Amino acid sequence: MDVYEAIKTRRSIRKYSSRPLEDEKLEKVLDAGRLSPSASNRQAWKFIAVRDKEKIIQMVEACNGQAFIAQAPAILVCCGTDPEGIMSCGQPRHTIDLSIATAYMILEAHELGLGTCWLGSFNEAKVKELLEIPENVRPVAVTPLGYPAERPFPKPRKPLDEVVCYDSYR
Amino acid sequence: MDVYEAIKTRRSIRKYSSRPLEDEKLEKVLDAGRLSPSASNRQAWKFIAVRDKEKIIQMVEACNGQAFIAQAPAILVCCGTDPEGIMSCGQPRHTIDLSIATAYMILEAHELGLGTCWLGSFNEAKVKELLEIPENVRPVAVTPLGYPAERPFPKPRKPLDEVVCYDSYR
Repeated sequence: MDVYEAIKTRRSIRKYSSRPLEDEKLEKVLDAGRLSPSASNRQAWKFIAVRDKEKIIQMVEACNGQAFIAQAPAILVCCGTDPEGIMSCGQPRHTIDLSIATAYMILEAHELGLGTCWLGSFNEAKVKELLEIPENVRPVAVTPLGYPAERPFPKPRKPLDEVVCYDSYR
Repeated sequence: MDVYEAIKTRRSIRKYSSRPLEDEKLEKVLDAGRLSPSASNRQAWKFIAVRDKEKIIQMVEACNGQAFIAQAPAILVCCGTDPEGIMSCGQPRHTIDLSIATAYMILEAHELGLGTCWLGSFNEAKVKELLEIPENVRPVAVTPLGYPAERPFPKPRKPLDEVVCYDSYR
């Protein structure tokens, strides 16, 4: 699947099939994160793949009751292992690095026929406690990963001329 | 180009050819940003494509003297138009939304044979002044865009077992 096609056809998936997730596919998704660019190539990240059924069920509460995630055979928790740095532009470095990595992983998952749903709604303290994430490490993004059991309609996007301008802001 | 291939072969480009950038290619890159997912599909973003040569030259100083960016026929400045919100996980919403959009755009650019270099080093106030960006809007990512005039070696990545763990952090 080419990049543009993947970008155009990916949807957030909130229903997952019971079909098991192949180890090779999980590893390829994780590899997309591993290969992604980071500030100064620091790669200050850890990707936790939760496959244990008990832990997956406990993740529901840590993700503010989003019950659908427990249908998935795996949940990815993408963590910044050095979350202190602010870049000279004023943005938090680990947030950007982990967002690029997670963006790459959700696109690669889609290429492999897998669904994801990027969760910004989770309780950081509870996720950290459940997965034994150290104090100085921050989970930035969480997504279930598995075969989709729905084909949602595309959400509408604004037209290009509303979100693009040339040479200065207008 | 498939997604995995694009992820694996993309490099940051710091030398650009004088070959002009076709409007259609620029628009396709911008469209990749337009189509990207955002929290609650808010699409609170604006992508500024700087093509004016004078402005591109002035961007060098605003980007802390990174002279190579002036070789490129365009510079993209990706802005969050509602930069206040913090998600329940504690992360800034606009940083994540704009990082996903920029990640999609740099991959799509690579698919089209174009180079990019994600800059985290820029002076936010100077970029805002130069491009007349309003007070309540924040540039999150800046990248030159154009045909590469170099083929840099891949930067080494950590092996998968160093960045991945299963079921809990270790």
